[in-house]
Amino acid sequence: MAQSLSPSPLAPASFPDMPIVGGVRFASAAAGVKYKDRADVMLALMVPGTTVAGVFTQSLTRSAPVRDCQAKLTTRGPDGAAILVNSGNSNAFTGHFGQTSVEQIASAVAAATALPEARVFTASTGVIGEPLPHDRIVAKIGELAEGLSETRIKDAAEAIMTTDTFAKGASAQVEIDGQTVSIVGIAKGSGMIAPDMATMLVYIFTDAQVEQSALQALLTSICNRTFNCITVDSDTSTSDSLMLCATGAANVDATGSNAFASALETVMLDLAHQVVRDGEGATKFVEIQITGAASDGDAKIHGLAIANSPLVKTALAGEDPNWGRIVMAIGKSGADADRDLLSISFGDVLVAEKGWVSPNYREEEAAALMKQDEITIKVDLGLGTGQATVWTCDLTHGYIQINADYRS
Amino acid sequence: MAQSLSPSPLAPASFPDMPIVGGVRFASAAAGVKYKDRADVMLALMVPGTTVAGVFTQSLTRSAPVRDCQAKLTTRGPDGAAILVNSGNSNAFTGHFGQTSVEQIASAVAAATALPEARVFTASTGVIGEPLPHDRIVAKIGELAEGLSETRIKDAAEAIMTTDTFAKGASAQVEIDGQTVSIVGIAKGSGMIAPDMATMLVYIFTDAQVEQSALQALLTSICNRTFNCITVDSDTSTSDSLMLCATGAANVDATGSNAFASALETVMLDLAHQVVRDGEGATKFVEIQITGAASDGDAKIHGLAIANSPLVKTALAGEDPNWGRIVMAIGKSGADADRDLLSISFGDVLVAEKGWVSPNYREEEAAALMKQDEITIKVDLGLGTGQATVWTCDLTHGYIQINADYRS
Repeated sequence: MAQSLSPSPLAPASFPDMPIVGGVRFASAAAGVKYKDRADVMLALMVPGTTVAGVFTQSLTRSAPVRDCQAKLTTRGPDGAAILVNSGNSNAFTGHFGQTSVEQIASAVAAATALPEARVFTASTGVIGEPLPHDRIVAKIGELAEGLSETRIKDAAEAIMTTDTFAKGASAQVEIDGQTVSIVGIAKGSGMIAPDMATMLVYIFTDAQVEQSALQALLTSICNRTFNCITVDSDTSTSDSLMLCATGAANVDATGSNAFASALETVMLDLAHQVVRDGEGATKFVEIQITGAASDGDAKIHGLAIANSPLVKTALAGEDPNWGRIVMAIGKSGADADRDLLSISFGDVLVAEKGWVSPNYREEEAAALMKQDEITIKVDLGLGTGQATVWTCDLTHGYIQINADYRS
Repeated sequence: MAQSLSPSPLAPASFPDMPIVGGVRFASAAAGVKYKDRADVMLALMVPGTTVAGVFTQSLTRSAPVRDCQAKLTTRGPDGAAILVNSGNSNAFTGHFGQTSVEQIASAVAAATALPEARVFTASTGVIGEPLPHDRIVAKIGELAEGLSETRIKDAAEAIMTTDTFAKGASAQVEIDGQTVSIVGIAKGSGMIAPDMATMLVYIFTDAQVEQSALQALLTSICNRTFNCITVDSDTSTSDSLMLCATGAANVDATGSNAFASALETVMLDLAHQVVRDGEGATKFVEIQITGAASDGDAKIHGLAIANSPLVKTALAGEDPNWGRIVMAIGKSGADADRDLLSISFGDVLVAEKGWVSPNYREEEAAALMKQDEITIKVDLGLGTGQATVWTCDLTHGYIQINADYRS
């Protein structure tokens, strides 16, 4: 296991200060699922009246907890809700035993929190295909329930880390009808990250009150511009989940509020970027802006083809302004392109236009840009008005190191 | 440049002995396109009556020589044919200058060989986006034409190498109507390899006589089971080309011959495997056999999803029988799968069945298999009769090393 990795060079300086969100409390504990001497289980408990929305991996081999959450998301009622997450074992591809583990854990949480089982959501992240030692988690539910606190969100963020090198949190506050609404979120994820939703674990909490179907629509829509626009390695997890809980404790109805939607998008984009910044082995944070595509959908296809190309990613690692590999990725993406209308820039340095290198291009300028930690690649297809922005990181020896020994 | 790489550990012991193919002669020369002190141009010249078939990259940003070959392939006539290939520069994304380079070279070859320009095919492989110094190549055409010999195919194979660590050749002989027909082929390619045709350079020559449209149909069909079933890194080249030339010098009509088709497939599969064995940084040759899929097309999608997954490929590098990552790749592939019907084996070791680890599985057995140079992964979807086999290699530090410094 990659427990002793030093923090990513792209990590924020520290975990952010986060506002208290009324109506939700957090706890964490060390259950010893796989890791020793660290917290590996977190519990979040929300008050009655909380609405819950979720977006989950589309994988056909998705895990038992994901299937269970998807089924429970359709439940309605006046009850509160709980989220229990463990790291170290994903409880994926564990046959019928997987569902049994989910039920055992949900049942124990329901008993300790006086909730119906249908309002207990679980998630598991870590190795695939090994039975989850759910007894170790069940044994800690009492301790978790007693330890719940409005201030313990950072502990929760730490408990769900696997190969993450830093805990990820983001927050926003917004005035609605003269009252302050808070949004806080935590995330984990650094490998097996590709946008087919959500391919990581993300939990967001707000004290706004939002009607459930509006909450779900908002989450899905913003997800397509944030978490579904990042990729580390093109691999899509069997486990991962994005959930948004609105407790209503602030007594402000934010249903349909643009200000709320905008604040939520800020938090989601911040967390999505942090996941890329903690990409396994990453040394560069890369934004790829596609414009002029035949459609927005085509723009995203081009962006992701560039972001997922091993040859582009290794060139970034080598600080090589190798725009030929960008041309290659566009050519193979499957979306519309015309070689002779393409233009490509690194940051503000125009590299190529009209099917060839720009007459003003000086490689020294681009090479200097490539030495920075954060790199912007701009591609204009010259075909239409379609656009998209995606984010990724480079592919380095660190990725090989982490993933050639992760399990054995 | 990666000129001093030691041979892949998966390389054949030596370049094979190849039979003479009547009606085709080879030459190579050092033109100094990019590399110093090595041959970097090869010429093959075929006799009048030769039929030529080709399959080319589908990339929308494909190179000038590829476009030129595609246009010329439709030409017919009693003339011979020539193929001129350089390494070190791909003449891709070089604007209108690219087509000028092709014309200059084709014109010089036509003059030296008394062929019409329409029968001179060229190819270029190497860095993208830099103008091809075609004058250096044109200056060597006379030397090439004088040096043509039936026996110099190995020199030709060496001249087209870029990051290849060994020259690739394969041959077969087959009796048709009591006469021996020979097939020889050479290939280059070790990175930017993914099946969207051909994503490498491959030239195959036979002294059989085959009618042109039959030759083309045969090449396309076999390509889909050989070169279109290999992947090193999922990246598709802008340049690469597969051509098959039938000189007819053996005076045997092999049009429609199953024996000929079978021998040709042997040569093409052998060359395709050699390209994988020379995958950049490869230490494992991996065959992925998919059965029980809903269709053959679905089987290939699953096979390529596994073969292209960075997490599967790094697990292979780490000799880790991490079948959970195979489950992940199947789940994200987009083709039909049912988690609870899947079975997965490494070689003859059944690992998982019916959605979970097999009761008889012992990890020591699988771990021992993973230490071998050649690994077979078998996946049965349990859904239908669709099947496919694909080949790939592992993802190692070597790949990063080669590609983080290739150009600069």
